[in-house]
Amino acid sequence: MNRIRFLTAGESHGQGLVGVLEGVPAGLTLSEADLLQELQRRQKGHGRGGRMKIERDQARILSGVRFGKTLGGPIALWLENKDWENWQTRMAVEDVPEKQKRVTVPRPGHADYAGAVKFGHDDLRNVLERASARETAMRVALGAVAKKLLAEFGIGVVSHVVQIHSVRNPFTLTAYGKIDVQIKAELTALNARADASPVRCLDPELEKEMVAAIDAAREKGDTVGGVFEVAALGLPVGLGSYTHWDRKLDARIAYA
Amino acid sequence: MNRIRFLTAGESHGQGLVGVLEGVPAGLTLSEADLLQELQRRQKGHGRGGRMKIERDQARILSGVRFGKTLGGPIALWLENKDWENWQTRMAVEDVPEKQKRVTVPRPGHADYAGAVKFGHDDLRNVLERASARETAMRVALGAVAKKLLAEFGIGVVSHVVQIHSVRNPFTLTAYGKIDVQIKAELTALNARADASPVRCLDPELEKEMVAAIDAAREKGDTVGGVFEVAALGLPVGLGSYTHWDRKLDARIAYA
Amino acid sequence: MNRIRFLTAGESHGQGLVGVLEGVPAGLTLSEADLLQELQRRQKGHGRGGRMKIERDQARILSGVRFGKTLGGPIALWLENKDWENWQTRMAVEDVPEKQKRVTVPRPGHADYAGAVKFGHDDLRNVLERASARETAMRVALGAVAKKLLAEFGIGVVSHVVQIHSVRNPFTLTAYGKIDVQIKAELTALNARADASPVRCLDPELEKEMVAAIDAAREKGDTVGGVFEVAALGLPVGLGSYTHWDRKLDARIAYA
Amino acid sequence: MNRIRFLTAGESHGQGLVGVLEGVPAGLTLSEADLLQELQRRQKGHGRGGRMKIERDQARILSGVRFGKTLGGPIALWLENKDWENWQTRMAVEDVPEKQKRVTVPRPGHADYAGAVKFGHDDLRNVLERASARETAMRVALGAVAKKLLAEFGIGVVSHVVQIHSVRNPFTLTAYGKIDVQIKAELTALNARADASPVRCLDPELEKEMVAAIDAAREKGDTVGGVFEVAALGLPVGLGSYTHWDRKLDARIAYA
Repeated sequence: MNRIRFLTAGESHGQGLVGVLEGVPAGLTLSEADLLQELQRRQKGHGRGGRMKIERDQARILSGVRFGKTLGGPIALWLENKDWENWQTRMAVEDVPEKQKRVTVPRPGHADYAGAVKFGHDDLRNVLERASARETAMRVALGAVAKKLLAEFGIGVVSHVVQIHSVRNPFTLTAYGKIDVQIKAELTALNARADASPVRCLDPELEKEMVAAIDAAREKGDTVGGVFEVAALGLPVGLGSYTHWDRKLDARIAYA
Repeated sequence: MNRIRFLTAGESHGQGLVGVLEGVPAGLTLSEADLLQELQRRQKGHGRGGRMKIERDQARILSGVRFGKTLGGPIALWLENKDWENWQTRMAVEDVPEKQKRVTVPRPGHADYAGAVKFGHDDLRNVLERASARETAMRVALGAVAKKLLAEFGIGVVSHVVQIHSVRNPFTLTAYGKIDVQIKAELTALNARADASPVRCLDPELEKEMVAAIDAAREKGDTVGGVFEVAALGLPVGLGSYTHWDRKLDARIAYA
Repeated sequence: MNRIRFLTAGESHGQGLVGVLEGVPAGLTLSEADLLQELQRRQKGHGRGGRMKIERDQARILSGVRFGKTLGGPIALWLENKDWENWQTRMAVEDVPEKQKRVTVPRPGHADYAGAVKFGHDDLRNVLERASARETAMRVALGAVAKKLLAEFGIGVVSHVVQIHSVRNPFTLTAYGKIDVQIKAELTALNARADASPVRCLDPELEKEMVAAIDAAREKGDTVGGVFEVAALGLPVGLGSYTHWDRKLDARIAYA
Repeated sequence: MNRIRFLTAGESHGQGLVGVLEGVPAGLTLSEADLLQELQRRQKGHGRGGRMKIERDQARILSGVRFGKTLGGPIALWLENKDWENWQTRMAVEDVPEKQKRVTVPRPGHADYAGAVKFGHDDLRNVLERASARETAMRVALGAVAKKLLAEFGIGVVSHVVQIHSVRNPFTLTAYGKIDVQIKAELTALNARADASPVRCLDPELEKEMVAAIDAAREKGDTVGGVFEVAALGLPVGLGSYTHWDRKLDARIAYA
């Protein structure tokens, strides 16, 4: 059994998202403000859908925290879907007298078709409500708890966008060698700078080009891919292991 | 990874209990009434604490079910603690200006002491709120979903109380040999009869003695132990395996 | 993933038993003599089958140890079946021109019948060769490595037989309260005394009665049950947890 | 618990490699020749080290197979290191009077340094003996069993090398659309053609360039990277799932 485990639940237009995080030690300082901070970072970004404007996500802590400290028991989080009142009939838990109109055209590149075949659904909504980027909101909230825990050990995370469509920033975090206190501060500042950019790009000129690439794709009803770089600072030596294939750190990172 | 997994969360006097059940197939008929039925069975029984009268448990389905059928995604359940309004300050998530009075006397035979040492708590309430029989309510609700799924395959569960304190019912389910349709009906009727007894005893005379044993113990501020018998009907041949120690069925049952 | 995992393999009259133990830290002193000591304890006991005289088990270390210290990688053990030469044809890996005579009468209370139905075998030997007490020899050898590791932390295990058939020793290890250095020495001496008894009974008079009960049963072609008591000394406070049902220590012990 | 699990063990210059595969169904036809076929494919390839010439790997089946069929119990495999006699002292399990000379210069890009720090080794041989490509031989042997099982369901695997250093074959398996019987035969033939090439390249002209790129790198004491493409044929629809992050198929493939 892993030291820390979690499960998430919830549909994109259902009542809300639920997460349970089990195995967090007792005594960690944790508040709903900690979760809000990360959820707000998630809602930034040029070119996000209109949904982002509807939902001002604020995760509530339902259990596992008392007087601002974790108890050692499971932490349950709740993220209400603010749009639920408009979806109560279309997404009702109980059977409804009049069935709603179904989604029957699978979108290419989505789970719609495979999910319908796997589970025998005749309404693709039954797939797409779960196979939705909305689900990541709960993972961000749960991740905020993990970040708080890691911060106790001086471990932090820095990231930035390297490429959007064909616009690439040649800068890379791997240019930094041994991380001392000064470089750590510098990297933390970089992260804040990325947060301030609508595309998390560290270069203001390239940022403009990236924004333009997104706008051009959107005009054509298309989307663009990208590359980002994440670095963890302050990690102890010796995570992962060469001793058995399933302990390898890169395997675990790729899985996640 | 197991086919079906679950996590529960929640404190005895917190906001409520949360459960997430992942891996249930799509298309299973499920309603909140199914959960209510099992939760009500849990709340029966002579000698239960006053808490049972306060909480008329009704689990809500927060996700994973649409139009009365499971979607194939995680099912989230919520069991509100009806007494929460009286505990909002004593069990507040956020830090409170004035700390509440602490529980400092560990009860023998409970997790109070070991939990306080393990997690470094100086208020035993931080332990006993999770190490509480209240937690089983969510497991009963999640188990109700499992029962619905098993019933699709003709699998059912029968149980009764064999012994309370020193009062023992000599009747045993193992007396039944090969289970045919008639015997299955008979056993199902037995289960309903057990449900009708305040101590789930199938013998009316012994039932009276069991009730008396509980009352006598309670008068002395004590509790009594007991023995129950559970049988699963309609199982396929070949569950578990002798091929590796951790696949053995009795090991798995003992664990659960 | 658990810190330490293992798999065992091998049939009772096959070439031998294999075990792989993964996750043991580097630097632990380990030799084949450590394994021999525990395997010899396993081969004691009044009333064991004739097999015990044939096999003088000596596990070989095939990997994971160099210059008497563990390397941190997986430890593979090999326990040759000394009787293999007499079984080479009956247990051949490759298909043989002339099929051997099959075992077709399932023994009551064994896995023979359930295993044949589960896997579709028409020769019960295909079941009983794995569902055999012989398999425990490899678990004892792997357990010897675990004991070496636990001993580094001052953790030891003491056990004795409480009951065989209806002969019961009223002595119990739970009579000891807080374990100090003196009591630990006393308990360790008890364990050695149990090892010296053919039935691991600490009372010489009851030992004779237990031996007689075994002999009486054997004469009738029967076997007898029993009860033993195991205590772990020097454990840290706080193993297991009340925070989630599957972390409970008694659940884990019952599983094992 | 996964349906099928495995552990491997063994050092590059130790006695040999051990693998235990648990959970394979009974009744699968399996012989040492099946393992040999895949192990021989592994030993092909232009530019492999001299080791490949020493070891003509033939895995032995130690358990789990009888009369050419799997028994349902764990399958143990043994791959002897043919060079062991020359390494008996340098890789001895027991402590040796005279310690061997240590490896103290970590190779860049290998686990040598990280492993030594993680486990506290002062001889890098203790790391590199496990963090070695030799370990993959056992995974190939275990994978051969998996291939036999998948073949029962008409599932096969096709692969070829896309790129070595800067030489890229523009051909891609994804060009094939719906796989019918004819195309399946065509792809299987492609796989055999790839096997016949010293660099598993499907284009004879590019093959020559790839071989030249390897030779050029080797002359400079360097190595080259590459890209390969693998396709599974005959898979059922609906593997993996969008319902929970850790069930996603691409996550699982990336992990492996």
